[in-house]
Amino acid sequence: MAKAFPVAPEIAVSQWFNTKVPLTLEALRGRPVLLHAFQMLCPGCVAHGTPQTERAHRLFRDTDLQVIGLHTVFEHHAAMTPVSLEAFIHEYRLSFPIGVDQPGKASPMPVSMERFQMRGTPTSILIGRDGTIRHHGFGQSDDMSLGAMIAQALAETI
Amino acid sequence: MAKAFPVAPEIAVSQWFNTKVPLTLEALRGRPVLLHAFQMLCPGCVAHGTPQTERAHRLFRDTDLQVIGLHTVFEHHAAMTPVSLEAFIHEYRLSFPIGVDQPGKASPMPVSMERFQMRGTPTSILIGRDGTIRHHGFGQSDDMSLGAMIAQALAETI
Amino acid sequence: MAKAFPVAPEIAVSQWFNTKVPLTLEALRGRPVLLHAFQMLCPGCVAHGTPQTERAHRLFRDTDLQVIGLHTVFEHHAAMTPVSLEAFIHEYRLSFPIGVDQPGKASPMPVSMERFQMRGTPTSILIGRDGTIRHHGFGQSDDMSLGAMIAQALAETI
Amino acid sequence: MAKAFPVAPEIAVSQWFNTKVPLTLEALRGRPVLLHAFQMLCPGCVAHGTPQTERAHRLFRDTDLQVIGLHTVFEHHAAMTPVSLEAFIHEYRLSFPIGVDQPGKASPMPVSMERFQMRGTPTSILIGRDGTIRHHGFGQSDDMSLGAMIAQALAETI
Repeated sequence: MAKAFPVAPEIAVSQWFNTKVPLTLEALRGRPVLLHAFQMLCPGCVAHGTPQTERAHRLFRDTDLQVIGLHTVFEHHAAMTPVSLEAFIHEYRLSFPIGVDQPGKASPMPVSMERFQMRGTPTSILIGRDGTIRHHGFGQSDDMSLGAMIAQALAETI
Repeated sequence: MAKAFPVAPEIAVSQWFNTKVPLTLEALRGRPVLLHAFQMLCPGCVAHGTPQTERAHRLFRDTDLQVIGLHTVFEHHAAMTPVSLEAFIHEYRLSFPIGVDQPGKASPMPVSMERFQMRGTPTSILIGRDGTIRHHGFGQSDDMSLGAMIAQALAETI
Repeated sequence: MAKAFPVAPEIAVSQWFNTKVPLTLEALRGRPVLLHAFQMLCPGCVAHGTPQTERAHRLFRDTDLQVIGLHTVFEHHAAMTPVSLEAFIHEYRLSFPIGVDQPGKASPMPVSMERFQMRGTPTSILIGRDGTIRHHGFGQSDDMSLGAMIAQALAETI
Repeated sequence: MAKAFPVAPEIAVSQWFNTKVPLTLEALRGRPVLLHAFQMLCPGCVAHGTPQTERAHRLFRDTDLQVIGLHTVFEHHAAMTPVSLEAFIHEYRLSFPIGVDQPGKASPMPVSMERFQMRGTPTSILIGRDGTIRHHGFGQSDDMSLGAMIAQALAETI
């Protein structure tokens, strides 16, 4: 009996960096997706999660994994505008597509962050080829474990 | 024959954080000063120089060393405003006084950075009790060496 | 057309630690094997390769991966006897099976090291379920890449 | 009123490496001495204390600080013989003088370790120009603090 994985909701992005075309999880169905939610002023993201995501983006470059960054600002909104984010992306040499999570209407929490019920940043979410959530991790995760989960998702066929 | 050290110019600060009273090198004459020039989006500052400065601030808390941070923005000005800096200081739990280096009039380089002829960020400058520059280092410096230089400056009498 | 991987030779071990029964690659056929060749006085092994192998052993504990350490002494033989190795294993809390590579007769290089044509320590070798060598890496390898290779080998069926 | 520091006892060494002449604290009176007690199979020594001592030896090369390593074997005696130590010193490129602490007669603890009442390894002891113990630290100490203590000891005159 297989465990039932929850289906990933769609992401809502107001602005993209490092990609000419907007990305949607729906269009990516059939490919594994690594979603990295971060804030540019979150120390744990800057020191661990974000560079780890860049490493994953480079390591799996020749596979059909899609890495997506999501700038999920839920605090210090005036301090982390898209203008500041753009300089951050430049300075940290991030090369994977990064979307600005659409600001929430009645909440400081942005839309995608709310849909995925994230608890904070950094959060790493791995979505399988079938669009289900295989891993939903808050905080620091180790490289070996992440590498193994991605390879496992890549090895699946649907 | 003693080596002649250059006298430190004054710093020019437009806004202070972590201190109720503005600081000047002139008023600090007689005490050693560690000046840490950084930018909040400079990876080498965030990973090394700035936390190292915080460590120095804490280690020498019971001495008369004065640690001063200087936010010397010379690129991405719109991305590193005082509003963003304030959130950065909060998120990284920085407790030493930090001044915003006064923007230059005809140059992207701010005033203090120009006066001290800094080559970039991070830059660490150690000023002796007599107001002369004892160390002017661009880039990463190691903890043991910095600790030794500060202790040596503290041991001097004028 | 699939790439042809070379078949792994058998290991030759004179003494085992952390296992009651001697291990052979032949008996392990059908399971992936991670072989870690090290020397207890090799700085790169102690700082990186050997703790990485321990992490792999723990991470994949619930899979059928077999991790094997091989103490391949090819220099300072008198300094790295089994007595010293045993204390090393104890002090570094290594829990995976470790075999002493059988000393060579006419060469300072031990038998398994020679058979696998290793260039030094640390060397990590990943053997697939079919007994072929999938990865043969000398020096430091990164955790994410190793995790991915192991997961890929685990996902294979024969 | 100055704090009274205890006078350092003499070290007892059965064999020296990296020095042609045996060293004694008595003969070194007038110079600061950094004593680093370690065991070659102690993980905290190998990862932190011993390389830190090597860094101190190099940083203060042009001063009259004397760095001394003391191999204080109090467990696994058969595993950490001078033959093994010699290979360890070679492989880890240690360049400061290292003495083998004289084995105890009725105790597993060697003589100098007992005299200095050390609690384990690594232990760092800083001795002032006047032969008194200024710092006696068990476990990991940070580089900045050690650098400062050494510089302070160097700045003293007797």
